[in-house]
Amino acid sequence: MHLELDGKGALYEQLTRALKRGILGGHLGGGSKLPATRDLANDLGVSRNTVLTAYELLCTEQLAMARGGSGTYVAHNMGPRTSPSASHAVGPQSRYAARTRRLGPTMLARTQPPVRYDLHCGEPLLSPALASGWRNELGKAAMHTELRYTTLQGLAALRQAICDHIARRRGVLANPDDIVIVSGTQQALSLVARVLLDDNHRAVIEDPRYELAFQTLRAHGCRIVPVRTDEDGLVTNELPTTSVRLVYVTPSHQFPSGSTMSLPRRMELLAYASERRCWILEDDYDGEFRFDSKPIPALRSLDVRDRVIYVGSFSKIVFPALRLGYVVCPKALVDDLVAAKKLDDLGCPAIEQAAMAEFIKSGRLERHLRRGTAELRRRRNCLIDGIRSHAGKHIRLIDSRAGMHLIGWLPGFTYARFAKLIELGRQRGVGLHAIHHFYSVAPETPGLILGFAGLSPIQISNATKILGACIDEV
Amino acid sequence: MHLELDGKGALYEQLTRALKRGILGGHLGGGSKLPATRDLANDLGVSRNTVLTAYELLCTEQLAMARGGSGTYVAHNMGPRTSPSASHAVGPQSRYAARTRRLGPTMLARTQPPVRYDLHCGEPLLSPALASGWRNELGKAAMHTELRYTTLQGLAALRQAICDHIARRRGVLANPDDIVIVSGTQQALSLVARVLLDDNHRAVIEDPRYELAFQTLRAHGCRIVPVRTDEDGLVTNELPTTSVRLVYVTPSHQFPSGSTMSLPRRMELLAYASERRCWILEDDYDGEFRFDSKPIPALRSLDVRDRVIYVGSFSKIVFPALRLGYVVCPKALVDDLVAAKKLDDLGCPAIEQAAMAEFIKSGRLERHLRRGTAELRRRRNCLIDGIRSHAGKHIRLIDSRAGMHLIGWLPGFTYARFAKLIELGRQRGVGLHAIHHFYSVAPETPGLILGFAGLSPIQISNATKILGACIDEV
Repeated sequence: MHLELDGKGALYEQLTRALKRGILGGHLGGGSKLPATRDLANDLGVSRNTVLTAYELLCTEQLAMARGGSGTYVAHNMGPRTSPSASHAVGPQSRYAARTRRLGPTMLARTQPPVRYDLHCGEPLLSPALASGWRNELGKAAMHTELRYTTLQGLAALRQAICDHIARRRGVLANPDDIVIVSGTQQALSLVARVLLDDNHRAVIEDPRYELAFQTLRAHGCRIVPVRTDEDGLVTNELPTTSVRLVYVTPSHQFPSGSTMSLPRRMELLAYASERRCWILEDDYDGEFRFDSKPIPALRSLDVRDRVIYVGSFSKIVFPALRLGYVVCPKALVDDLVAAKKLDDLGCPAIEQAAMAEFIKSGRLERHLRRGTAELRRRRNCLIDGIRSHAGKHIRLIDSRAGMHLIGWLPGFTYARFAKLIELGRQRGVGLHAIHHFYSVAPETPGLILGFAGLSPIQISNATKILGACIDEV
Repeated sequence: MHLELDGKGALYEQLTRALKRGILGGHLGGGSKLPATRDLANDLGVSRNTVLTAYELLCTEQLAMARGGSGTYVAHNMGPRTSPSASHAVGPQSRYAARTRRLGPTMLARTQPPVRYDLHCGEPLLSPALASGWRNELGKAAMHTELRYTTLQGLAALRQAICDHIARRRGVLANPDDIVIVSGTQQALSLVARVLLDDNHRAVIEDPRYELAFQTLRAHGCRIVPVRTDEDGLVTNELPTTSVRLVYVTPSHQFPSGSTMSLPRRMELLAYASERRCWILEDDYDGEFRFDSKPIPALRSLDVRDRVIYVGSFSKIVFPALRLGYVVCPKALVDDLVAAKKLDDLGCPAIEQAAMAEFIKSGRLERHLRRGTAELRRRRNCLIDGIRSHAGKHIRLIDSRAGMHLIGWLPGFTYARFAKLIELGRQRGVGLHAIHHFYSVAPETPGLILGFAGLSPIQISNATKILGACIDEV
């Protein structure tokens, strides 16, 4: 009898599992006799005790039975069992699964295989100081945090700290009762979709778009209405006149085009939502990193009709692996959102919430944001200088006042030449990323999303030098 | 002019916000003149500079504008704005929200207001040693964990550690590729519902039931078919003959009745799923805590047809505020489940995953489980002894071999008398919890779910003494 031991744990355990596989896989038929313990021990080169123990375990699991002196037999009630089918191909089991299968892949991290200088805009700004500061907070929080089930809506201390933080930094006045702690913008999107939208409801997203917002709403079964954006953000007079349930926007720093929504557009969008009784989801994904002194108030801070669902995340400003964010929720929706959060995961991990509350209250988050903004400004200037000196004739940079990426258009380029540039960049160790994938219809001019948060100033200089050389070559 | 400062941050910030509220709330009409800076400074008892700064900020935010020497005016494009409606009552916005509104509340934590001895079965077994051990793991993990976006399916090291753990302890053979890390059983349920079930698909749950499984499937829009359980677990020959997509079971320790599903029933359920091509969700919520030496293999370990979705959670065995669990997923469903996880939250927090991987690999989880099982056995024996000595005539305890609670039936009691008992218990400081809420039809005899994990042996003794006295009194 061929038995394959899997090398995990004690020998008798391995043998038990191997026999079990034999029984359940039908290789050892119901009622058949197992080899004599001495024989099997010899065959396998193990002690007889090991075999005896394995047989006993099979008997206690009722998979086999010992018959007096005659030996051990495979139990009858196993019945004839066929082996599993070789192919695991199964169609989607739900409409949701069918829809997700039709969605494209999403790139969150750097390109595979990694290149030396990746200008991907999903790369966060990380520092060793942050890791060790966060470690201290976690350690302290682990000692004093209640380890039982946490409140579904989120730790009260964290909700209070967030209210203070967004009042100071974003002009958003909220009450802790309006806040729901989530595991990031993605969960906020997913919960809001469940609470607000049925199959075939219409949702507006910006064009170009944040791919995961599109995918989440699409997977949920929504009909997506893309609305154009320009240098003033969403073109509000192109909003649909048909019924719309939700408008998803990134007003502080449109993703990916980088524009900031102007105040008149903001007022128009609020009026639109108010008239049509639809909801606005304001994704303030990197509004914390601003490089000028001209703040535009968050939509939520202008929203007297309580139609704006404001979503903030610590993933972009602290680190992505954290998975912690928050929703400032219109009063009418708080209970529904908390119910959806409950059924989704019973609330966020308590220790990380407590650590974040303390990180905010102690002023460490603000310090991190100040330093982060200064560092991002350096990197951004480096990118702008580098592009100007090495590719200034070919790349038209669009200035944006916030965030972690810039857009560079290549007006003289065809898409064929542009594709060659990206490929050549990859060969030379520079990861370049096209913007047209984010548009519903590719713009006439090809453009690059140039993320600058993940590389040091020197790396950025080198990358732009190589980029310039590549452009001259193609 | 009445302005209310909110006391948060610098005075000029408070003043800016107060003015903003006035403008957006319509109390300061579009085009109207703001008070002279000197007057307002006098009114409020602040410096004139504070007022000047606030006015400047309003201007940069385009909410006001300065007109030469004549003063500062509220911007025109604000338009006439009405104040928010007093009532926030809004109907449910989606079918999902409507369904969640119809669901009852769920009690996860102890009763409110707290009683001295709460025999609630949601209480975990906690120890200071665990908190400090976990703190060390977290601290170490924070220093070496990749802080960028994590893999959606879960950290490879954790998936490998889980494979080893469940092979050793639960006889489940899995490959790291089959594992999806989730934030607990609740998220597993919610993702599986999305991947497998459309509106009006049928799902079987056990009767009596785990309330959150019922609620999750109900909120998702399923039709729920309750199937009776007895001392051998789910009564498989009462499974519906109509089409069913999912069978949710708790075979190691039925929640809440405490029975263990017998091997013949397990084989019947597997055959049922295989014939009808439906799926089984095996919730092994407290299968790690067993008090006898007679292990019954997990359904998943008997499943050669790959129809069982096995769900394990660290919430019950480590601590609930952790929010970490895993799914051992049939190969046919892995990609769909990962896609659903992606759209739900982009993966679990990386530091906690890394800490848990190390906690398992270092053997600390097993040690914790051994100690936990010994401690739970003590508490369970204490409960059994206490009930026998103080209420043995009235309470028929159902022995169960695993977990953190026992069931006690009160055959001589009417429901009226039973309700009095629970109320009297509450008054005397003992939290008692009825089992009939978990049945689709209340059983003839009233019964108690007696959780023993959250109280020390002495507390349990005291609680049973009081319980005995209460019974004698009602």
